[in-house]
Amino acid sequence: MSELRQNIATREWYVIATERSKRPHDFIHERPIRDEMPYSEKCPFCVGNEAQTPSTLQQVAGDDGRWQIRVISNKFSALQPVGNRERRTDGVYRSMDGFGISEVIIESPLHNHNLVKMDVDHIEKLIQVYRDRYVSAMADPRIETVMIFKNYGPSAGCSMAHPHSQLIATPVVPTHIRHRLESAKRYCDDTGNCVFCDMLAQEMAEKVRMVVENDSFAVFCPHASGGAFESLIMPKRHEPAFENINPKEMRDLAQILKNLITRYYYALGDPDFNYTIKAPPRDESNDKSFHWYIKVMPRLTKVAGFELGSGMYINVTLPEDNARILRETACGD
Amino acid sequence: MSELRQNIATREWYVIATERSKRPHDFIHERPIRDEMPYSEKCPFCVGNEAQTPSTLQQVAGDDGRWQIRVISNKFSALQPVGNRERRTDGVYRSMDGFGISEVIIESPLHNHNLVKMDVDHIEKLIQVYRDRYVSAMADPRIETVMIFKNYGPSAGCSMAHPHSQLIATPVVPTHIRHRLESAKRYCDDTGNCVFCDMLAQEMAEKVRMVVENDSFAVFCPHASGGAFESLIMPKRHEPAFENINPKEMRDLAQILKNLITRYYYALGDPDFNYTIKAPPRDESNDKSFHWYIKVMPRLTKVAGFELGSGMYINVTLPEDNARILRETACGD
Repeated sequence: MSELRQNIATREWYVIATERSKRPHDFIHERPIRDEMPYSEKCPFCVGNEAQTPSTLQQVAGDDGRWQIRVISNKFSALQPVGNRERRTDGVYRSMDGFGISEVIIESPLHNHNLVKMDVDHIEKLIQVYRDRYVSAMADPRIETVMIFKNYGPSAGCSMAHPHSQLIATPVVPTHIRHRLESAKRYCDDTGNCVFCDMLAQEMAEKVRMVVENDSFAVFCPHASGGAFESLIMPKRHEPAFENINPKEMRDLAQILKNLITRYYYALGDPDFNYTIKAPPRDESNDKSFHWYIKVMPRLTKVAGFELGSGMYINVTLPEDNARILRETACGD
Repeated sequence: MSELRQNIATREWYVIATERSKRPHDFIHERPIRDEMPYSEKCPFCVGNEAQTPSTLQQVAGDDGRWQIRVISNKFSALQPVGNRERRTDGVYRSMDGFGISEVIIESPLHNHNLVKMDVDHIEKLIQVYRDRYVSAMADPRIETVMIFKNYGPSAGCSMAHPHSQLIATPVVPTHIRHRLESAKRYCDDTGNCVFCDMLAQEMAEKVRMVVENDSFAVFCPHASGGAFESLIMPKRHEPAFENINPKEMRDLAQILKNLITRYYYALGDPDFNYTIKAPPRDESNDKSFHWYIKVMPRLTKVAGFELGSGMYINVTLPEDNARILRETACGD
């Protein structure tokens, strides 16, 4: 029979529909093949089309002096880099300026590049840029929370084929994140432990939900998760703040990120996905109850009324099966 | 410039991207026209195909003695009606039986019926069935939370064209709902008022976000909302529990639900949507800080990495514009 499982970090319950557990080929959907060319005349992120975008905020140059990774402001951002944190009231309502930072990290000059094709050196530079942009955004004292994420493919809300990630920094702590921090804090108050360290220890001991590991990171499909084939990339070293990632960890993260995305590519037929770096807000960056990580979510199913109304997700696959399938997928390493 | 607005009921912040406010025709997508026939041989919900579904739990008969609305168990439910509420632990993890109630409410014998075509008498009977099923599910003492919702169209996660709603009842209170209850409770502790009554009073006084009202209900686009054209159908009478809806309110709800969906139909070109009845869990059904209502969400945009990571939604439209557009849309009343 099915199970309800609670995410011990957030206290959220998920339905794990074990009986009708799907097989990976159920998730290989018919889709237009991503057969983009290396250059697209119409793409503002392609080499030579830089004039169509805002000016460069940061770039990584290759041996030939040309940019390999380039960061720009998001031209279509919902948030503007002007304004302040003062709250206004209108009757019972509360609002404030739509202040924030919104950047696009163009991952490659090649229109058809992706994490499966990129080499680990290149991805390592991308991780360094993620960290640089994180630190840069937090340097603005008005910013409370910095989110770095990638949308890959139309189901993941991505409208531009050219490989890119994004940063959005906000002057508020989203309530959703506040609730997660509170839950991790209470776990730590109760047990004296970091909830993520406890999860990691159990996953590494049991090995049933582990996908892959290296010196610095373990990847596993969490015991309680709402999406098919969801994975966490968890640093083995307890550290609240993403910005404190060290050089060895950056290298290892590049290796394991490529490894995981390659497993998805071959197991699920190049699925659309999102990933987000889960980092604490400014005031919690030294809070020992938190532990930064990356959550990777293939976008294989649709969110419907039950999920929207309850915030409770139905996973039609068994995390243990997902992990085994990903573990057994050749990834060219 | 854009605004951040806080939902005072949940404390969630939303980005309201006022500057690039879209117009309704931006949301009228090319789509296959819903030109279903009144009967489909392959549809298990159609008249004559009842043998393909589980047996009838409840039905409403018409003057000719044939069913007009029919309720069945969900054949493909992730939750089964057997099991108990006992929690199990496995190391740090917590799980329990996948116990729950999952029903399908077939709204009409006609395959191509919908809320725009149905008459108010028929929708009134549907509301009565919603209430009957709510009471029936709560009669099981293992149940904590009952969700009644409708998914309309593929973007809303609906795979069956035949008009239907659903009920899912769970033996836990979803954390998402728990956080909302706590937020409403604190508002009530602080102010002495129901937060929904306070919102309603301001909306009815200002009228800038109102769409339509009748004796028992007001429909408005909430000040802070994450989705374009989102609306709330709010009972004017303060009442925590949906099950205490009275006959006059059932009639008025049928009228206003048809009215609102018809406005969406003409303003946005028959959009996909979800609605959910927001009702409190068992132990909060007499809690004066809560107030039941219906949230209607057209599914016009995609959820991407920022929303998944932060739980903070970007609304590319201005609720005041949405309300005006819906208000000015003819709805045949």
